Amino acid sequence: MSDRARLNEQLDFVDEMDKAKGVFRRSHLVGEDRNEDDAQHQWHFAVMALILAEHAAEPIDVGRVVAMGLLHDVVEIDAGDVFVYDESAKAEKAVRELAAAERIFNLLPPDQARYVRDLWDEFEARETPEARFAAAIDRTQALLQNLRTNGAAWREHGIVASQVFALNEQIGLGAPALWAEIRARIERAVDEGVLPT
Amino acid sequence: MSDRARLNEQLDFVDEMDKAKGVFRRSHLVGEDRNEDDAQHQWHFAVMALILAEHAAEPIDVGRVVAMGLLHDVVEIDAGDVFVYDESAKAEKAVRELAAAERIFNLLPPDQARYVRDLWDEFEARETPEARFAAAIDRTQALLQNLRTNGAAWREHGIVASQVFALNEQIGLGAPALWAEIRARIERAVDEGVLPT
Repeated sequence: MSDRARLNEQLDFVDEMDKAKGVFRRSHLVGEDRNEDDAQHQWHFAVMALILAEHAAEPIDVGRVVAMGLLHDVVEIDAGDVFVYDESAKAEKAVRELAAAERIFNLLPPDQARYVRDLWDEFEARETPEARFAAAIDRTQALLQNLRTNGAAWREHGIVASQVFALNEQIGLGAPALWAEIRARIERAVDEGVLPT
Repeated sequence: MSDRARLNEQLDFVDEMDKAKGVFRRSHLVGEDRNEDDAQHQWHFAVMALILAEHAAEPIDVGRVVAMGLLHDVVEIDAGDVFVYDESAKAEKAVRELAAAERIFNLLPPDQARYVRDLWDEFEARETPEARFAAAIDRTQALLQNLRTNGAAWREHGIVASQVFALNEQIGLGAPALWAEIRARIERAVDEGVLPT
């Protein structure tokens, strides 16, 4: 492959990435009648990984977590976002996301397609310290976004405290001190009536 | 400072970062009547830095460029976005951004405030290989966003080809092969009437 052909494949991928700005999550935005999109979420995730790295349960390569965070949801360009509390949709989601990974990552030159696919597989498997910390950051970002918007997404979808505790306790696997603080904030949200029991 | 107080300072900064999702740039979004925001731009920048790193003019620490990209515009939370072609607004912008950096970065614990401020100062000064490559990516992201939306921002603000060439030739300092390709795309936009001369 010529250098120019390689660069153009990379720019095709960069163009495709633009679509993440139109993949909407269940989380609301502060001060705007628009849900949060995957570009915004992945940016916030990456910033959080940089700033909160010292709270990881085990030693981590922060750069790898940041890269994981930047790309962990881009399969949703094809597969769409599935609400994290929707158990019934999760099996079908896995099939769609695998097909999406095949198409989207392979826009890149083969060596980079492999690199991005490895990052995504690692994140999904939760078997490395980096993936466990990344999962903690992913959950924390969504949870703080919900608190920031007074539980709008919880209310909209009838989510109660027991579900929020059950889903988010995995934060403790990747970042114990972060989970202690987040759990206290969930408890406060319950006390203040932001999150129903 | 206790560990918990430190974590809470970090989470205050994470909360503040949320506001970047409401700082709008001149670039339009594809398929939506909304301008691009700073969270989306900084995410796209960081992904591009990862994928295009091999085109840097000099050896670079990619992780540092990614971190720079993730945070280079957060001063605009206070200072607002200034159109890159608006020369008269640039002096006043520098003063406002310095005050913003003082307030926003100092939400973090002192060691991290210093780290983020150093990243931002380095980006602004364009004196390291990382900062020059970051500047090339910053310009390329905006330019491709404009091409992707058929030059909407150029048309809206009466920008012509000579201005686009003059502003973007700095891409060549950080990433020569990327600039060769981007220049060819600008020329094509002129030929196709997307960008007036």
